[in-house]
Amino acid sequence: MVDVDYKPGDVLRFRLALEEMEGTVLESPDNEIVLIKLSSGYNIGLKKENILGYEIIKKYSTQQKHVEIKQKEGLPKIGLIITGGTIASKASQATGGVKPITDVNEFLSFYPELLNMVNIKSLEIPFKMFSENMSSEHWIKLAQTIKPMLDDKEIEGVIVSHGTDTLHYTAAALSFFINGINKPVVLTYSQRSIDRASSDANLNLQCAARAALSDAAEVMLVGHASINDDYCFALRGTKVKKMHSSRRDAFKPINTGPLAKVWPNRIEFMQKYKKKDVNSMSEIDTAYTDKVALIKYYPGQSPDILDFYALKYKGVVIEGTGLGHVQGNEGLQSWIPIIKKHIRSGLVVCITSQTTFGRVDPYVYSTARDMLDAGCIFLEDMLPETALVKLGFVLGHYGWKKYVKEKMLENLSGEFQPELPINPV
Amino acid sequence: MVDVDYKPGDVLRFRLALEEMEGTVLESPDNEIVLIKLSSGYNIGLKKENILGYEIIKKYSTQQKHVEIKQKEGLPKIGLIITGGTIASKASQATGGVKPITDVNEFLSFYPELLNMVNIKSLEIPFKMFSENMSSEHWIKLAQTIKPMLDDKEIEGVIVSHGTDTLHYTAAALSFFINGINKPVVLTYSQRSIDRASSDANLNLQCAARAALSDAAEVMLVGHASINDDYCFALRGTKVKKMHSSRRDAFKPINTGPLAKVWPNRIEFMQKYKKKDVNSMSEIDTAYTDKVALIKYYPGQSPDILDFYALKYKGVVIEGTGLGHVQGNEGLQSWIPIIKKHIRSGLVVCITSQTTFGRVDPYVYSTARDMLDAGCIFLEDMLPETALVKLGFVLGHYGWKKYVKEKMLENLSGEFQPELPINPV
Repeated sequence: MVDVDYKPGDVLRFRLALEEMEGTVLESPDNEIVLIKLSSGYNIGLKKENILGYEIIKKYSTQQKHVEIKQKEGLPKIGLIITGGTIASKASQATGGVKPITDVNEFLSFYPELLNMVNIKSLEIPFKMFSENMSSEHWIKLAQTIKPMLDDKEIEGVIVSHGTDTLHYTAAALSFFINGINKPVVLTYSQRSIDRASSDANLNLQCAARAALSDAAEVMLVGHASINDDYCFALRGTKVKKMHSSRRDAFKPINTGPLAKVWPNRIEFMQKYKKKDVNSMSEIDTAYTDKVALIKYYPGQSPDILDFYALKYKGVVIEGTGLGHVQGNEGLQSWIPIIKKHIRSGLVVCITSQTTFGRVDPYVYSTARDMLDAGCIFLEDMLPETALVKLGFVLGHYGWKKYVKEKMLENLSGEFQPELPINPV
Repeated sequence: MVDVDYKPGDVLRFRLALEEMEGTVLESPDNEIVLIKLSSGYNIGLKKENILGYEIIKKYSTQQKHVEIKQKEGLPKIGLIITGGTIASKASQATGGVKPITDVNEFLSFYPELLNMVNIKSLEIPFKMFSENMSSEHWIKLAQTIKPMLDDKEIEGVIVSHGTDTLHYTAAALSFFINGINKPVVLTYSQRSIDRASSDANLNLQCAARAALSDAAEVMLVGHASINDDYCFALRGTKVKKMHSSRRDAFKPINTGPLAKVWPNRIEFMQKYKKKDVNSMSEIDTAYTDKVALIKYYPGQSPDILDFYALKYKGVVIEGTGLGHVQGNEGLQSWIPIIKKHIRSGLVVCITSQTTFGRVDPYVYSTARDMLDAGCIFLEDMLPETALVKLGFVLGHYGWKKYVKEKMLENLSGEFQPELPINPV
């Protein structure tokens, strides 16, 4: 065992009893262990008593590079909104995790290609956080931040950089909040921070810029189409879900195909889309109630969860099993009478499926027929996440009180894929 | 408009003002509308006032065909357990939905190929229901029904026919309940009832028989590998999920590959598996508590849901976002202090991801590090559904009280895929 004199962020090569090992030192929770990150990305703990010696390969430097950002003549103008997330973060030498970039110049310095494609006419940071910490207040604030960019005729399109965790919920919210959208609103992200070799941020942001310059007036999510770093998909904001915790192509279109394939220098649309019209006006309608909940049903679940939500909530979205089921009258603890009771008292109960893909159908099995009779609203092929956001939006409009079912079943923003046939029994 | 004289189940050809249309009459909720199922599988409603005439193509008959079932010499013996579901159902002419087959002979008469492959030495019907109505009582009853078949050395393997809705929860439960499994236990299903041309039941059941005759002592789910009617996959009971509400290849392996490709006449294993040994004994351990719940987190969700469950429950599995997050200290309503409080009071809090694919990781972002510090158990690549069942199983063992975390992180039945690398940050 040797005396050790290093700091977090240093790159060391250790001589161990049997092998040599090289990596970046991280903050260690245990004084007897040196925690290092290998170039493979793995962390490994070395007992200090096993370390025979080491050499410092590179001292950690906290100095930041500074790149000057100039407006370039002749480039089209966009609006850029930074909200945080991994795309606005870098690896922390201290923890081996990632931490937010605090400076806009530093953010842009990581993305020089973007500034060769567009001029950023307007840059806003309404808040900065990882997206698991967001709630409807942030969706509303974001819509309000986008509004002046939609009104500005010089701005071709808007890019929003955002954490991945709840990006699909935000995409759905913006899809409902922006009424008569007149230009592209493009959400993008990264799964690996920009200072990592495997980062997906740069391609995503360039493709987002390409989509923002397109003629599609849609809320789109743009990111890696596959694990390769070659092109992106643009996905409709109401039909997209994060389907992998770490892959670069985490976002998948659900019950539909991609809206477009996007490269940094071109975009190929694969579906019909609404055409851009910068001369028309978009309205922002952020009426929303938080008194909505999402319940994923599991076998044997007690229906008393409905009693809990009915006390304070206006509506629930149930992720049922299969074609949209909960425990029916054949089971030991039927949900049907409890659902019926609460619907009679004014609770709105919407049904989606936990299978992710496919659509619910109340006409095949008796359980769902009973749920339909009780007043449940079966939401076809709508995603549970989109359904939750839509329910908060619909119930937030007091003027729609008499038409909740009609509104939930109306295709407000592409949340239903009407071209898909209803699955034959 | 003509006078109409038909009954549900009749096949009629209608003459309408502009077109002819042929289909099977269904029970209609509206007296003014004739509801028919077209051969495409779609239902359509015809206003009686638009019907100019019709002819009856085929009268509905309730007569059932009867096939005699003989034991054939020299065929290997299996155990068969029927629990209901679509695989034991047929289309109801009355509702256009499906209804259970009530007679075992009728069930077997639909599957003549099975009886050319195996002799059914033991046939049990412990209960008969669509699987959305099942709860842990049924998993326990099922394990108890399987036990004598595992003990019977003449029986090569066991087939369980089961509804699809919660089949993956049952598969996980049996994986944990059967200790030292000595022969194949094969769960199978269908997504379309057997009397439909598009039924997947026959191929699934034949492939299930082939898997039951294999040398793998595993709890497996066997069903269509694709929408084609050519071969099936055998999928590990703890790593499988229903991923489509209606497709025939609804079940997908999650965070692993298929265990085997299965045809009616052969099986090709694709992963390591436990070898069959009919001379060893399997034990059934059905200790289980229902006082466990699954919570799918959504943005802005109030942590008071934890107060609700902590009152009566011993443990919860949270489907967090991304790498396993809930709202952290950066958000408006952090879950961290509430989680900490309830864990201190004895609630077990396990973390999985709502992304379905990938694994949770508490070392990348501060929110998850805070959750880990609060005492959350991060369940790697385990499915939320499997995690819920495992938590009920682990907490059902009072002797394991001091080792809940160790047991939850021990690979009891293939619920972790150890070969998968931890995703580098």
